[in-house]
Amino acid sequence: MCLMSFRYNKLVQLNMELDLNMKADLKLMIPGPTPVPEEILEVLARPPIGHRSPEFKEVLKDVYSNLQWAFQTQRPVYLYTASGTGAMEAALVNVLNPGDEVLVLSCGVFSQRWAEIAKELGLQVHLQEAPAGQPHDVGKLETLLKSEQGKTIKAVCMIHNETSTGVINPVEELAKVIRENSDALVIVDTVTSLGATHFKMDEWGVDIAVSGSQKGFMLPPGLSFLAVSERALQAHQQCSNPGYYFNFTKYEKGIAGATTPYTPAVSLIRGLQKALEMMKAEGIDGTTQRHLRNRDMVRAAARAMALPLFVEAEAYASPSVTSIVPPEGLSVDAIRAGIKEQFNITIANGQKDLTGKIFRIGHLGAIFPRDILMTIASLEVVCHQLGYSKAPLGAGIAAAQEVMIRHA
Amino acid sequence: MCLMSFRYNKLVQLNMELDLNMKADLKLMIPGPTPVPEEILEVLARPPIGHRSPEFKEVLKDVYSNLQWAFQTQRPVYLYTASGTGAMEAALVNVLNPGDEVLVLSCGVFSQRWAEIAKELGLQVHLQEAPAGQPHDVGKLETLLKSEQGKTIKAVCMIHNETSTGVINPVEELAKVIRENSDALVIVDTVTSLGATHFKMDEWGVDIAVSGSQKGFMLPPGLSFLAVSERALQAHQQCSNPGYYFNFTKYEKGIAGATTPYTPAVSLIRGLQKALEMMKAEGIDGTTQRHLRNRDMVRAAARAMALPLFVEAEAYASPSVTSIVPPEGLSVDAIRAGIKEQFNITIANGQKDLTGKIFRIGHLGAIFPRDILMTIASLEVVCHQLGYSKAPLGAGIAAAQEVMIRHA
Repeated sequence: MCLMSFRYNKLVQLNMELDLNMKADLKLMIPGPTPVPEEILEVLARPPIGHRSPEFKEVLKDVYSNLQWAFQTQRPVYLYTASGTGAMEAALVNVLNPGDEVLVLSCGVFSQRWAEIAKELGLQVHLQEAPAGQPHDVGKLETLLKSEQGKTIKAVCMIHNETSTGVINPVEELAKVIRENSDALVIVDTVTSLGATHFKMDEWGVDIAVSGSQKGFMLPPGLSFLAVSERALQAHQQCSNPGYYFNFTKYEKGIAGATTPYTPAVSLIRGLQKALEMMKAEGIDGTTQRHLRNRDMVRAAARAMALPLFVEAEAYASPSVTSIVPPEGLSVDAIRAGIKEQFNITIANGQKDLTGKIFRIGHLGAIFPRDILMTIASLEVVCHQLGYSKAPLGAGIAAAQEVMIRHA
Repeated sequence: MCLMSFRYNKLVQLNMELDLNMKADLKLMIPGPTPVPEEILEVLARPPIGHRSPEFKEVLKDVYSNLQWAFQTQRPVYLYTASGTGAMEAALVNVLNPGDEVLVLSCGVFSQRWAEIAKELGLQVHLQEAPAGQPHDVGKLETLLKSEQGKTIKAVCMIHNETSTGVINPVEELAKVIRENSDALVIVDTVTSLGATHFKMDEWGVDIAVSGSQKGFMLPPGLSFLAVSERALQAHQQCSNPGYYFNFTKYEKGIAGATTPYTPAVSLIRGLQKALEMMKAEGIDGTTQRHLRNRDMVRAAARAMALPLFVEAEAYASPSVTSIVPPEGLSVDAIRAGIKEQFNITIANGQKDLTGKIFRIGHLGAIFPRDILMTIASLEVVCHQLGYSKAPLGAGIAAAQEVMIRHA
């Protein structure tokens, strides 16, 4: 550890000498915000237009229609000028009343957030936890729903892709078991799954799904989206205190008039119009394939470098982010700092309990094979500089290249 | 060849299926235009200010001063709203008269351009050619200058970095031998050497040096710079027809008044102010080291991949661009198309006689190790897909990574 520390300090010092003043542009390889493509940046840079103008009405019509495509729903999708957490609050406050019982399927920091919000809103929370790095078990959920406790649950909250660990939940199966065994609303956080993999709101019987702009939608943060079923809308009619800014009724009316209830983030929404156009051109199958290829390249590289993957099974490994456990002697801080300082690439630390225990490489949104190759090559350099010798230089890259060639 | 062709077609077809609609942003790995850093793009995106405004006067003062630093000269440097070829014409038309004899040291497409311009201007051209891929020999030049022919030569035109082949000429030594053996003006094209390596206008005794914005200066094309010695300025006084737009006298006055003789490219010049600030912060030593590291990474990778280097000796291998000969069975077109289509990275073909015989990887301007690693990793994938098997995947990357680690 002492040698590592010395090497790290030497590394930082040498880089200060050589590279401090001229750096490559920042490259985000985190699970959001994700890189914004040039085509979208150009749109974002335009001066805002009036949010009640006919021009903006046309933008909104286009965006509202394409958001339905993104969520695969026939129902309107609400567009909030707020980040994803705002939409999560909206999802609960609009359909539940204080004292209602909700079941939260937690498997990490972001799914846990459903419980925090629910408690704050005076809901009664039942927590079912999956171990970190594992998805939720459909059988266990079925057992719970069939128990006495299951009968009084008004809503089940879950996450599609758990960003803090890199796990994807079997939402289709979980939703099915809920619909078959209870009248609970199915509420899903799709913040880091939409634009990365298939999500079928209507077909899967999901009642509320929320997502955000800065992930698969390739935009800066500031917008969130909420899709709502007929059932959820009926629950909304029974809700005693749905609040004002996030109130479903207001947004339902807004969409009907091709407008928004309050001043929206005009520039971001024009960017969203462009993003949705690009997403449709690639198609959900294409996007899903690209993200799986990204994921498989990173995972193959990690294996070839003998770096342990936090999520072992391909079956539930996230298409958006891959968590890697640093080997003995290498700290997450040193790896992240080396990659940042020498390559100006940001990768993520673990969160909460997993801080310093894993690092996370995002491969979500406008991320392409060349970005993966660049990040892996940079990771190899830094690990080597830090004294890691379990794999030769180039081994991770070769594995990633092979995956790319196989996928092509 | 038939198998290669089949593989290539299959490759293109598969990519059409998977990647046509969503691409990484274009990455230029050519010897100009070079990538423009975000910090400069932001400045370029600002609305233009008046070119006779006090604000722009301050910009010009700053730019004029820092251009002197860039050329390492005490004399003013003229700022032309024109590309490099304009400044090349200016270099000849301002100091020579029709019928004057000039010696052109040619070693490729760009140094050859001096001869083309000189002929167009009615000058008498003597051509000394170095073989493609070789620099000019100081001894040979000395012999020529000492001969009868040498006595009547009014100017010697040369190139510092020959972009078409990837050779750097020993300008310091060539200039020295000219100053010691003749009164000829020393005129140097530094278009792709400035901002990549050392160039010392005053110390080396260069009379006119020209450069352009879209190379080491990290800007879009549209500006060129011309540094001129006292001796060249005296020759200008004897010039019968120096023309209007490029006339030295007009620019000399312009600089004295912190203005420009005619409407300048205001946005590009504000970008230039930023670029020069960044270049000064890195320092010429830092810039030179970074470019040598870029070059050495590419060359080590090519060697490890068993791809022949067009310029064999490190001593005169360009810091800005590296020419690689495709191995038997791989065409330059297929390699370039594969890298463009799959990775949206542009590398250059050879020019004129060298078209299809070499491909050129630019590593000039805002290019950093991560860009080299990405490009090499992409090149490996494409060569492999085209059936190349002389080196395993990852071999080139490992060699480039080793160079990077050694340089750090």
